[in-house]
Amino acid sequence: MNNALDHLPEILLLGPGPSSTAPEVYQALSRPTLGHLDPTFIGIMDETKKLIQQVARTANAVTFPVSGTGSAGMETGFVNFIEPGDSVLILQNGVFGTRMKDVAQRLGGQVDSVDFEWGTPVIVSAVKEALEKKKYDLVAVVHAETSTGVANPVSEIAPLVKAAGALLLVDGVTSLGGMPVTLDAWGADIFYSGTQKCLACPPGLAPFSASEAAVARLKARKTKVPNWYLDLSMIVNYWEGAKRAYHHTAPINMIYGLYAALLRVVTEGLESTHARHTAAHEQLVAGLQKMGLQMLVQPGSRLPMLNAVVVPDGVDEAAVRSRLLTEHHIEIGAGLGPLAGKIWRIGLMGYNARPDVVDRVLGALKSVL
Amino acid sequence: MNNALDHLPEILLLGPGPSSTAPEVYQALSRPTLGHLDPTFIGIMDETKKLIQQVARTANAVTFPVSGTGSAGMETGFVNFIEPGDSVLILQNGVFGTRMKDVAQRLGGQVDSVDFEWGTPVIVSAVKEALEKKKYDLVAVVHAETSTGVANPVSEIAPLVKAAGALLLVDGVTSLGGMPVTLDAWGADIFYSGTQKCLACPPGLAPFSASEAAVARLKARKTKVPNWYLDLSMIVNYWEGAKRAYHHTAPINMIYGLYAALLRVVTEGLESTHARHTAAHEQLVAGLQKMGLQMLVQPGSRLPMLNAVVVPDGVDEAAVRSRLLTEHHIEIGAGLGPLAGKIWRIGLMGYNARPDVVDRVLGALKSVL
Repeated sequence: MNNALDHLPEILLLGPGPSSTAPEVYQALSRPTLGHLDPTFIGIMDETKKLIQQVARTANAVTFPVSGTGSAGMETGFVNFIEPGDSVLILQNGVFGTRMKDVAQRLGGQVDSVDFEWGTPVIVSAVKEALEKKKYDLVAVVHAETSTGVANPVSEIAPLVKAAGALLLVDGVTSLGGMPVTLDAWGADIFYSGTQKCLACPPGLAPFSASEAAVARLKARKTKVPNWYLDLSMIVNYWEGAKRAYHHTAPINMIYGLYAALLRVVTEGLESTHARHTAAHEQLVAGLQKMGLQMLVQPGSRLPMLNAVVVPDGVDEAAVRSRLLTEHHIEIGAGLGPLAGKIWRIGLMGYNARPDVVDRVLGALKSVL
Repeated sequence: MNNALDHLPEILLLGPGPSSTAPEVYQALSRPTLGHLDPTFIGIMDETKKLIQQVARTANAVTFPVSGTGSAGMETGFVNFIEPGDSVLILQNGVFGTRMKDVAQRLGGQVDSVDFEWGTPVIVSAVKEALEKKKYDLVAVVHAETSTGVANPVSEIAPLVKAAGALLLVDGVTSLGGMPVTLDAWGADIFYSGTQKCLACPPGLAPFSASEAAVARLKARKTKVPNWYLDLSMIVNYWEGAKRAYHHTAPINMIYGLYAALLRVVTEGLESTHARHTAAHEQLVAGLQKMGLQMLVQPGSRLPMLNAVVVPDGVDEAAVRSRLLTEHHIEIGAGLGPLAGKIWRIGLMGYNARPDVVDRVLGALKSVL
């Protein structure tokens, strides 16, 4: 049988993620597999935990990578902290807010949402109003809405949620490593991210963190977590302390990859990493505007790592993406939901947030349009 | 900061899993990351599906790797196919049967179990009796009990379960690739495995398969699957057909690894692979017996890939494992639950089911004891 992996094309991944994997991460993935209770591996777990704490700016003891993709992080964030009948408020302005609603409802949450137009940010006064009208157990917001390119004002939303006595859940799948994520300064209680965006690691793990208040809520549950695989109360016995009780077999080599990816970010320095993402974004926007292309999102709410570009009238957006892929070996993303056919999504994440990469995608777009 | 991955020891992994990763699989893990909707990657998904079908001997259309470890496979197997109030029978003779009970109960299943002594197999007549006494919606059995080294007689249990009108769930985490797994011949409805045992791939994915009867049960559910991440009805829209609807981002590089691991098994041939596991097992048992060591499990019920060895009286079992690890760079496993302190578990899985590996562990054991 032929091995299909012998003939993989090298594609520059400028979609909504996965982004291109960094060289150090590729190397890490194929380092020797160790046992999940091996003392050397446990050392790497401890280092990985510390690195997540550094990159997400938190001292939360419960900080580790969930053994699944970013969506497993979302599932973990809801299934552990809400019980049937709990009131949940979702701030919804894109695919991932919508997904949160579905996740929480399946778990028996009484879910309300405040909805904002896709491509616009959450409006803080509307959140304030909603919190004044009703008492919520948990409020959830997506920091970086990958489906629209919008940054939501988590730092302004957080104090309102805390004052209202609810737990604050923040989806940082796309933001972590590309823009400041400051869990403790915000007062975020539940946080998850993904590996395949600004960390430049393949998909497969979800860096996760829970505050003391969240852990107290978990401990006070009346019902068992209805998900054995993602039950934090058991998983922490493997990730924490002296006992290291076996729960499930950790994805060893993926954890190597995440460790290397986080080490890369910390070695570069958080501020430089974020500045590099901002610079790439500004370079891209300037280039696109020169070509007469418009951004979907207003300045001030634009994500650096995910750029939503309006498809000009009369242009076949799918044909452009297809030509970029086949002729230029560049992947960019399509719009989703109400934005399908209306935008392209250009990701400049992690290893790809570089001037030469921006030049390359601008040049390719110019030649195709 | 130091990179801890630069100084990883090379350990021969002869515990209950992870087993040592095969060279082709290491290579596969670090092949270029592609987008999860890239046509080349979708081709690899299709090939991976076909390879799982071949190795598990099934034509089930719903066959794919779950984006989590073997335990996520177990969660998927229960959360999609039982609803609150459903009657579930677990055949329980080790850790993984016990875990199934917990998983199913958390989902609202009315769970009974037939229990057998750890280290002994499920007794078919006892299953028959239980099925005559009560009507069950689902019956679950572990094919290869990794905690005890026992092979359960799935081929004899399956027809009883089918005749009783229940779905049959088979845990094949440790068996797949190391002994015959024949889903369609058995009539198994729900099956999951892991990558880190006889497939010689790091942990992180759970090869999964569901029969038409199981899918019909899924479609007839009265309630939504209470787990967004593992909801098969959505996941199949990504793994099947022309649409390839985005659900969650697939763990691209881990899927490369699984693809290469399965290709390796199919290239060697299933019968040769199984024979190689049997030969390694027999060589080990002969060598252990020469040293005066006893096996926990009676001949006829012994797993080839997981050997439960009785710790002789007066021997400090933990010290032996520790010396094997530090002096010989060999990891073997400890006993769990009622067998803690009483057995060692020596895995000869996948890449490690080889005569030279057996010689090495026998030699090391001899020198330590």
